[in-house]
Amino acid sequence: MNWRDITAFVADGAAVPIAQQRIDSLAIPVGSLGRLHEIAIKLAGITGTAKPKIDFCRVLVFSADHGVAQQRVSAFPSEVTDLNTQLMAEGRATISVLADLLGAKLHIVDVGINADEYDKEKLSLFRHKFSSRKIRRGSKDISIEPAMSEQEMSCAIQVGFDLVIDDDEAEIIVIGEMGIGNTTPSSAIISALLGLPAVEVTGPGSGLDQAGVYHKVNVVDQAVARLFSVTPCPSPLEVLRQLGGLELAAIVGAILGATVRRVPVILDGFIVSSSYLVASRIVTGLNDICFAGTRSAERGFDHLENDSGLSPILDLQMRLGEGSAALLAYPIIRAASRHLSDGATLSELSL
Amino acid sequence: MNWRDITAFVADGAAVPIAQQRIDSLAIPVGSLGRLHEIAIKLAGITGTAKPKIDFCRVLVFSADHGVAQQRVSAFPSEVTDLNTQLMAEGRATISVLADLLGAKLHIVDVGINADEYDKEKLSLFRHKFSSRKIRRGSKDISIEPAMSEQEMSCAIQVGFDLVIDDDEAEIIVIGEMGIGNTTPSSAIISALLGLPAVEVTGPGSGLDQAGVYHKVNVVDQAVARLFSVTPCPSPLEVLRQLGGLELAAIVGAILGATVRRVPVILDGFIVSSSYLVASRIVTGLNDICFAGTRSAERGFDHLENDSGLSPILDLQMRLGEGSAALLAYPIIRAASRHLSDGATLSELSL
Repeated sequence: MNWRDITAFVADGAAVPIAQQRIDSLAIPVGSLGRLHEIAIKLAGITGTAKPKIDFCRVLVFSADHGVAQQRVSAFPSEVTDLNTQLMAEGRATISVLADLLGAKLHIVDVGINADEYDKEKLSLFRHKFSSRKIRRGSKDISIEPAMSEQEMSCAIQVGFDLVIDDDEAEIIVIGEMGIGNTTPSSAIISALLGLPAVEVTGPGSGLDQAGVYHKVNVVDQAVARLFSVTPCPSPLEVLRQLGGLELAAIVGAILGATVRRVPVILDGFIVSSSYLVASRIVTGLNDICFAGTRSAERGFDHLENDSGLSPILDLQMRLGEGSAALLAYPIIRAASRHLSDGATLSELSL
Repeated sequence: MNWRDITAFVADGAAVPIAQQRIDSLAIPVGSLGRLHEIAIKLAGITGTAKPKIDFCRVLVFSADHGVAQQRVSAFPSEVTDLNTQLMAEGRATISVLADLLGAKLHIVDVGINADEYDKEKLSLFRHKFSSRKIRRGSKDISIEPAMSEQEMSCAIQVGFDLVIDDDEAEIIVIGEMGIGNTTPSSAIISALLGLPAVEVTGPGSGLDQAGVYHKVNVVDQAVARLFSVTPCPSPLEVLRQLGGLELAAIVGAILGATVRRVPVILDGFIVSSSYLVASRIVTGLNDICFAGTRSAERGFDHLENDSGLSPILDLQMRLGEGSAALLAYPIIRAASRHLSDGATLSELSL
């Protein structure tokens, strides 16, 4: 199946009223479960059942490097993408610790790290699932040229798409990323697609100081100006190709893949949400299958929230990436589904 | 040990800087774990170790009835306290479903349900731990007379205190409650201790309509006015005795007990927080051992938050009680502690 076949997601019209009826019949005060009710109803629409089972959580983390990192837009050198990807796979990074704790299954995917393929010795140290789907060693510098070619972008999207479609076990998917410099393409995408000045959607990322942010705003401005000078009315996919990155494209594909399998998706913060923004411009109804796991502290996230209409489940002021904050929303979504399935109904009581 | 022996909680001054040092050495961008860092530091101060283990969660739910329920201040009849307590113990209520899901151990304690002791047949249906510590069958109507005698209050506080002190397994405690009508004593306590008019701290509870809330405000006003007419400058404990309830007193005791065992406490919403307010007036430093699990939608909660300085971890607009919302904060607190213990440090990397 090709990712271009996906044009819309439609919530299941039959399951939603049945789930609502079940919620109304629960032996609890009306509305007392607050957002858990809203989450449960949404899960019914996604999965097509009034008793959704959300017990197998897959955390998909896409790693790639960015040519624009050479413009000194990150507090860290590009090499950290490679190092941290290995750390995640070895089970020692934040997302690995949290996945173990919460019983989620981590899958790390190299779609464009600027390093050689890992040799057998390195791979033997990996405790978590790892797939090499390297499209190229890093995207190009978006302040100077397009991040990738048409074909590279399409391949990257297809990688994310296929991974989700072929995943028979996942009942919910957390999407995370690792890529030094990737808040810069995210800010550029948001600036271009929402028509906002760079300064309104560009923040410190993993820890720039004020001067660093000032410089980064200029780099984002330059990239967006370059795009519009070449293509005055770019399509959403052209925005992704010109200003994005390989992991950002793969994330778009993963979101589209989820619509085929009808599994809910938990979006991590700023970067994953910028991919969601692209996806939402090419496929309708995605806000019915995606949850915003967390509010991001990164400047411009409120614009993303307003645009998607997805109200974040958590607000823990995390800005680590890797899917870590989104994963912490998983127990809450799981609780909503479990309560819908197992909560006692009024008719079971003798009031 | 008597609960009156407790006068202060002091965070461990040695463990906090060691934990801070460890956090600074983690292989993640500075500050990127947001509130998880703050939680981890607090856990170190509570437990006295820089690698706190928070894997056994006890959910303590105290049940009792309230004489003031006869003033029609709740959307439900008093009998529901008894019925729902059985439902919790049988494993079919919301808190039971969530405790099973999250691997927490539920302990339900009758400190004053207005019903006979459960017979052997009923007890045999209970899947969760249940203790009968009935002080009396319901507190008295606070709009007319004191909720309880000095001795009854002291016994109820000691019940909560002893349960926590004798609990060798719990590494963290979630405190919940069940008691039809108990937002009314909570509002009265808050009004009296914070010097706020009833209308500012009285909401719909489990589902009153506007006329019901108007009536409830008058009942709260009447109770507080009665207290001040008898005792112009009541002590915090006198406020609890006159305006509180048996489960509210037991919760005060449980919080005090946690200081002896140095286990963190997660407070549930409005009602448990009103007990915290009383406890914080008789023992200093409690905000160093307690977490606000959730923001409550009930009117007046913001005053409690301002007073305690405890910023809620979750805001899911739940108002079910039973400890359900607080329990959902447990995985997040657990994640903070696990990451502090297991996260890779920079010195482990070869940057």
